[in-house]
Amino acid sequence: MFHATVITLFPELFPGPLRASVLGRGLSEGLWSLDTVNIRDFSDNKYGSVDDTPAGGGAGMVMRADILAAAIDAVPRNDRPILCLSPRGRSLDQARIKALSEGPGLIALCGRFEGIDERLFAARNVEEVSIGDFVLAGGEIAAMAMIEACVRLIPAVLGSASSLGEESFEGGLLEYPQYTRPREFEGRAIPDVLLSGDHQKITEWRQRQAEAITRARRPDLWAGYQKSGPIRSDKNKDETS
Amino acid sequence: MFHATVITLFPELFPGPLRASVLGRGLSEGLWSLDTVNIRDFSDNKYGSVDDTPAGGGAGMVMRADILAAAIDAVPRNDRPILCLSPRGRSLDQARIKALSEGPGLIALCGRFEGIDERLFAARNVEEVSIGDFVLAGGEIAAMAMIEACVRLIPAVLGSASSLGEESFEGGLLEYPQYTRPREFEGRAIPDVLLSGDHQKITEWRQRQAEAITRARRPDLWAGYQKSGPIRSDKNKDETS
Repeated sequence: MFHATVITLFPELFPGPLRASVLGRGLSEGLWSLDTVNIRDFSDNKYGSVDDTPAGGGAGMVMRADILAAAIDAVPRNDRPILCLSPRGRSLDQARIKALSEGPGLIALCGRFEGIDERLFAARNVEEVSIGDFVLAGGEIAAMAMIEACVRLIPAVLGSASSLGEESFEGGLLEYPQYTRPREFEGRAIPDVLLSGDHQKITEWRQRQAEAITRARRPDLWAGYQKSGPIRSDKNKDETS
Repeated sequence: MFHATVITLFPELFPGPLRASVLGRGLSEGLWSLDTVNIRDFSDNKYGSVDDTPAGGGAGMVMRADILAAAIDAVPRNDRPILCLSPRGRSLDQARIKALSEGPGLIALCGRFEGIDERLFAARNVEEVSIGDFVLAGGEIAAMAMIEACVRLIPAVLGSASSLGEESFEGGLLEYPQYTRPREFEGRAIPDVLLSGDHQKITEWRQRQAEAITRARRPDLWAGYQKSGPIRSDKNKDETS
């Protein structure tokens, strides 16, 4: 079973938004599990501090390697990777998320302040990963995003395994546009082809739309898609997130 | 003042993790503000449903344009952009976050299910944005990440404006490694240069380290950095996130 452990200064934030909808139901039903470790419990001083000033000078405070190592050592590893959320990390993508979701879970280390003493990463085999090219106040929300992305791929959690084979990024393209009732909305009609009942035409139209939107919005993905060649169009469906 | 409105099926998740630490203090002190709109309040039927089956077939449900438009129309716009969190969106980066943080705020639209009726985006000038190349169960955690990234850039919120000029991505590089006490941790010493007191040498060492880690982890950022030329090394500090 997928088990997430979050090492954080703010354990009270969890499960937080992870308790919503299908993820929350899965958590209640024991389809995945979550616990937290409070870094402050491993402070070695009466102030409960876990940080100190940066060697060599600079603004802010750096989280201490010895205290974080003690927090990590208190967590049963069970072959799970330790992932530290940081803008310095390698970018998480859907392929990595999928691989994580098929494993025993993960240990998420959430930094705060100006950063973490570099020696920790090698000493405890901690990998830095990033959800995107922007800076957060701490790793907690990024950890939630990573955990949600993994857990929703567990077939029992989402319920309908059929839609998991049709995700964004799996086919290398962004999603084609979706439409539903009403047939006309403020003078805008649903494209005729979608109401034609001709499944072959619908599939072709969706594929062309997915290609056009990927080319326009994400030249980087488009370049990769063109290199790897076209992929079956029914692989390109997506969920909102 | 920066004001965030979140349009969601799960208003109870907010502020959630945004109440932690400096962001939470800033929210209590009125340095920024947040409210939510429950999409379900705009349902036109007794079941409270807001979605329907996809035109043209396919798995899952699509959120209706007319209902989302009514929810959007209930929100005072005040020159704020409406941003829909979606893996189809253009990637958010620190430059965009910074621009948003300097404006009047934002309206975040959180999708669930298989997606949103495409006609909404043009009808209400909604821009799709993505926090990263992975799929979430809904837009809520992504909205939290976007809002946290913006709000921490408001000088009064972070408190020390001095560290804001030294962020990751601003200089085009990832962060150099940080160290703090103890001087030796499990046989690993703090690099001598950082204890030398020679600020010129320290600055040069940090610059070389930042370049090396960017080259190794993010060839895409490294290519952009080389194109734009070296930037002052004291611009390359970072915070953990």
